[in-house]
Amino acid sequence: MEENSKNLTDSVDSGQGNDVGDAWGLGKPSRVHRIARMPVERFGSEYNMNHRNRGFALIFNHEYFDLPSLNSRSGTAADCENLVKSFQRLDFTVCVFNDLKYREILREIEAVSRLDHSDNDCIAICILSHGELGYIYARDGQYKLESIWTYFTADRCPTLAGKPKLFFIQACQGDQLDGGITLLNDRTETDSSSTGGLSYKIPNHADFLIAYSTIPGFYSWRNTTKGSWFMQSLCQELNEHGTKYDLLTILTFVCRRVAIDFESNAPDRPKMHQQKQIPCITTMMTRILRFNEK
Amino acid sequence: MEENSKNLTDSVDSGQGNDVGDAWGLGKPSRVHRIARMPVERFGSEYNMNHRNRGFALIFNHEYFDLPSLNSRSGTAADCENLVKSFQRLDFTVCVFNDLKYREILREIEAVSRLDHSDNDCIAICILSHGELGYIYARDGQYKLESIWTYFTADRCPTLAGKPKLFFIQACQGDQLDGGITLLNDRTETDSSSTGGLSYKIPNHADFLIAYSTIPGFYSWRNTTKGSWFMQSLCQELNEHGTKYDLLTILTFVCRRVAIDFESNAPDRPKMHQQKQIPCITTMMTRILRFNEK
Repeated sequence: MEENSKNLTDSVDSGQGNDVGDAWGLGKPSRVHRIARMPVERFGSEYNMNHRNRGFALIFNHEYFDLPSLNSRSGTAADCENLVKSFQRLDFTVCVFNDLKYREILREIEAVSRLDHSDNDCIAICILSHGELGYIYARDGQYKLESIWTYFTADRCPTLAGKPKLFFIQACQGDQLDGGITLLNDRTETDSSSTGGLSYKIPNHADFLIAYSTIPGFYSWRNTTKGSWFMQSLCQELNEHGTKYDLLTILTFVCRRVAIDFESNAPDRPKMHQQKQIPCITTMMTRILRFNEK
Repeated sequence: MEENSKNLTDSVDSGQGNDVGDAWGLGKPSRVHRIARMPVERFGSEYNMNHRNRGFALIFNHEYFDLPSLNSRSGTAADCENLVKSFQRLDFTVCVFNDLKYREILREIEAVSRLDHSDNDCIAICILSHGELGYIYARDGQYKLESIWTYFTADRCPTLAGKPKLFFIQACQGDQLDGGITLLNDRTETDSSSTGGLSYKIPNHADFLIAYSTIPGFYSWRNTTKGSWFMQSLCQELNEHGTKYDLLTILTFVCRRVAIDFESNAPDRPKMHQQKQIPCITTMMTRILRFNEK
């Protein structure tokens, strides 16, 4: 593959003459790095999960808001407790932050992004809040998810370069509803690289995973006692299969649980009744991620 | 899990009092279905890939454009040929459409969405074109990817309900560049359900996968003779591992190839020189997808 690395004539698939805004909120002033330690060999098929520590799991839990238009999120405490247990079980160092304002969230994120993660396998960040298309709510207002995750690109957080950076978001992304479709069973059919030690270059935006509870434009459902459908399912799958399957397989099964096992029950509001939900997993991971036993 | 299906008190995580636009272009007039045939048992962990046919792979290949601002996309013929071979090898029925106008694309998409896919495992749609953030170019203008994939939601295309609907997109999503980071090797550490036959309800938007060559806001690179980095990598991984690994694992390795093996070579344009790229895979799949041998 080395010959492919250098191409004589590279072109870009962009409509020319059009300026496109900085959609992911990048370009903040911050120390930028060009070289980092290699956490795994170039052709390794799995992330190295054998560092001394698993790494941090930060949980930003939002139940109460300063904005009068936002209801309190009953049930989120159940999500938060479940997440703490699930991530601790996978050997993460878990930190919970309750009802922070946007500036406070940024302060915590920036502090964590400046830590030395050299002995950590990865980082996980969970956000439990209200949301809209493109925005999540802090206690005092909206923010873009990008304003958080850009602190962890490889050039800005080099001790996490080449390591998984995982985001799990429970929040609406709009107000659309999915009424679903019923699948009927009629005689169902059944289903049955080499190594290299030299340095290599990776994109700054590689190795991210963003697991969103719902697809863009749509509602995300929460049970006011048991917690959100997505976080209930995530914790259940992490507890049952966290060290057995790779993370994308686990998240596929989270999608199956949310999609099949849940349906809204709000008979007094016919429009909201018997609705379905599907999570949306976006991955830029470059290797298989398996939480081995520490 | 049945007890979980009906929740007493479901709430949504939305900022109330805010109207959110129809971001994914839904709501077009079309026949909507509420019931479909079940292609796989409720608790099956893999998609049923044992239908009579694998299904269609549509390739919308764009080299020339009516818009004077858009350069021709030399190298895309190589991508297209590679895709045809790779998908045929996986037993897809492949159809290639060259340089269609937007209305022509929609006509083909609508025609395919109205076919009976009962004997098909899945559908795959590849688009090779210029793009910007949120838009892809047809021969005569921009369109949103959503305007295509919404034809295949479970309620509008019930013979594909519960089956994988796969989109592979080679196009820019903006004009940002990723200069990357070099990983240095200093003593690298090494890495090492039950069944059920009753009917069940799924979200209309489940079972989609959208594999984009680059992340939102960023350039997507193409070699003018060998084809785009993403499609070269996709075809190579499909050829080598298409029937061996599940699709998300294959796409993880596609990300690894693009991220590590490629770097732009444009020494006469310093800003564009030695840049990196990371693909962006978004999955709403609910089961493992493995292209078995037919």
